[in-house]
Amino acid sequence: MSTSSKRDSLEAIGEFGLIRQLKQQWSASSPWIVKGIGDDAAILKAHQGQQLLISTDVLVEGVHFNLAYQTPKDVGWRAGVANLSDIAAMGGTPLYLLVSMAMPARIPPRHIRELYRGLQAACGPYTVELIGGDTASSPSHIFLSLTIVGSVQANRALTRSRAEVGDRIYVTGTLGDSNAGLRILQTHSKHFRSSSLSAVEKFLTRRHVRPTPRIHVGQLLADRNLAHAAIDLSDGLSSDVGHVCEESQVGAEVRGKTLPLSSQLRAFAQRNNLDPMELALQGGEDYELLFTAPAKHHQKVLAVSKQTKVPIACIGEIQPKIFGQQFERSDGRKQKLAKKGFTHFSNR
Amino acid sequence: MSTSSKRDSLEAIGEFGLIRQLKQQWSASSPWIVKGIGDDAAILKAHQGQQLLISTDVLVEGVHFNLAYQTPKDVGWRAGVANLSDIAAMGGTPLYLLVSMAMPARIPPRHIRELYRGLQAACGPYTVELIGGDTASSPSHIFLSLTIVGSVQANRALTRSRAEVGDRIYVTGTLGDSNAGLRILQTHSKHFRSSSLSAVEKFLTRRHVRPTPRIHVGQLLADRNLAHAAIDLSDGLSSDVGHVCEESQVGAEVRGKTLPLSSQLRAFAQRNNLDPMELALQGGEDYELLFTAPAKHHQKVLAVSKQTKVPIACIGEIQPKIFGQQFERSDGRKQKLAKKGFTHFSNR
Repeated sequence: MSTSSKRDSLEAIGEFGLIRQLKQQWSASSPWIVKGIGDDAAILKAHQGQQLLISTDVLVEGVHFNLAYQTPKDVGWRAGVANLSDIAAMGGTPLYLLVSMAMPARIPPRHIRELYRGLQAACGPYTVELIGGDTASSPSHIFLSLTIVGSVQANRALTRSRAEVGDRIYVTGTLGDSNAGLRILQTHSKHFRSSSLSAVEKFLTRRHVRPTPRIHVGQLLADRNLAHAAIDLSDGLSSDVGHVCEESQVGAEVRGKTLPLSSQLRAFAQRNNLDPMELALQGGEDYELLFTAPAKHHQKVLAVSKQTKVPIACIGEIQPKIFGQQFERSDGRKQKLAKKGFTHFSNR
Repeated sequence: MSTSSKRDSLEAIGEFGLIRQLKQQWSASSPWIVKGIGDDAAILKAHQGQQLLISTDVLVEGVHFNLAYQTPKDVGWRAGVANLSDIAAMGGTPLYLLVSMAMPARIPPRHIRELYRGLQAACGPYTVELIGGDTASSPSHIFLSLTIVGSVQANRALTRSRAEVGDRIYVTGTLGDSNAGLRILQTHSKHFRSSSLSAVEKFLTRRHVRPTPRIHVGQLLADRNLAHAAIDLSDGLSSDVGHVCEESQVGAEVRGKTLPLSSQLRAFAQRNNLDPMELALQGGEDYELLFTAPAKHHQKVLAVSKQTKVPIACIGEIQPKIFGQQFERSDGRKQKLAKKGFTHFSNR
């Protein structure tokens, strides 16, 4: 590779730089599109006061999953949740799924069926139908590409771009568990007995292999018009706060003391001499929701938490853009909210 | 791999066997779905007398394309046409595109932008908007997954399942050119000068790298209610006739004498001691349309050909299922229409 082409390498511009470039390269607008590229899902106008949401995700063996420590069913589950979570982040109802895959010939079809079973199980609580897909052979790794279609009441979709200064920042569930669970799994082979895991390890690995999409929370936030902006935590808290700030042209302050951490994460961090806060900030694939809502809706947000039995914590506030994105550590010192969440093509 | 798992291998059950199994594993029905999995695109109910079409395709480096003899722009063009062609085969209008890709870090972003330019160029004659996608890194090969959304007048979509006994079988354009073009390209590196190609070779390679989706033909057939069934020729004529027969529960007779072959294909076949008929029957990725229409519409079908300036040839007739799928050779002898079109996971 020449020096000049190095500057134009994927490592240099990164995933988001690339998406930005492509967005500029291909821009148009149609009256049917309420929101195009750049959010968790596209919004298309549909019938009967509904708008359609459509989103796609790609998962690559060796990058997003590893059959060395995950079963095909786990892979399917997590792929399903990654897609469902995009619909949750828009406040929508998942409806249809298209599944494309490319498989090396070494993969036995029963593994593919297992993968589909995991996908189906993740979609189980919702009425999601498989309406299409494509299969192909692959020379080496497994590739999965899922496209999900959902619906949302017209003009109620939660986007990343409507956070307002003064909004409170909320997250569902607890953060960083998936990251810790992955670290535990990576030290084991797929043939390990989960009975050999401690209760803490069982909890954390479960949070990694069986994440829960927050569909119901998203739906209630949208239906009741409570939230200004929302995103699902797939890249990691600091990255995903950054996405909302960038799209909404605002700043944010996140307070470490208020981050919801499970006791299991704290125990794991202590035992492994890790900073639990760092695990929560940088850990990707929690598939929890982050949303912003005006302070006046605080009680109503708590009511959503009570109704859905999903914990919701206020972790900070939206600030003017000039404020930047800051993190207040537990000891009160402030630091820049650094985006170290998972990005493809980065130099890590 | 054990003997028992070998019987359950992808090679043994093949792509269509796998799709069938997955269809059975995950079946449901919703009043919004007009047609789910199993056709060129799914049909969803939409607004204002329109139905939505949605289709997805996966393309893998080393399987569907090869940068050794294709430029990134070629790859993008062909990926776009593969998707547009699915909408053409439903008689629809392409509207939106979602593009997912996984790329090894070795690929320079300018190649990705070139690929998008090819995609955009293929979509150029139509108002297709990019509304989403996902990018990821890949450990080895490039993986592309496209999802296209289109619309069609309610209940006018052309499916594979409504061919009727007595229907004439039509195809657009000429068959086998893409197959021949690919064979020519495979004997060259990407650095060859196209000026070194003969006029015949230029025509055939062009037909491979720049196929045309038959959007307008499909639209007119649907709008004017002329065709009973349609499919695009992506797997190869014999395979794709087979798909229509299977879905419609009918047989078919295809007459070799009437297959539309370009003079360039005949010249190429003669020079290389190949059977041009075989190239036309088994060659995939022509992206021409195959459709069936009642004999009474013959003149109207010819009018579509005239209006769109796309040749349309009658190549046979739909027969009762018991007839099977037969091919009448030019010498009058009949043989089974063998499905040797490209299938993934096959033992070829």
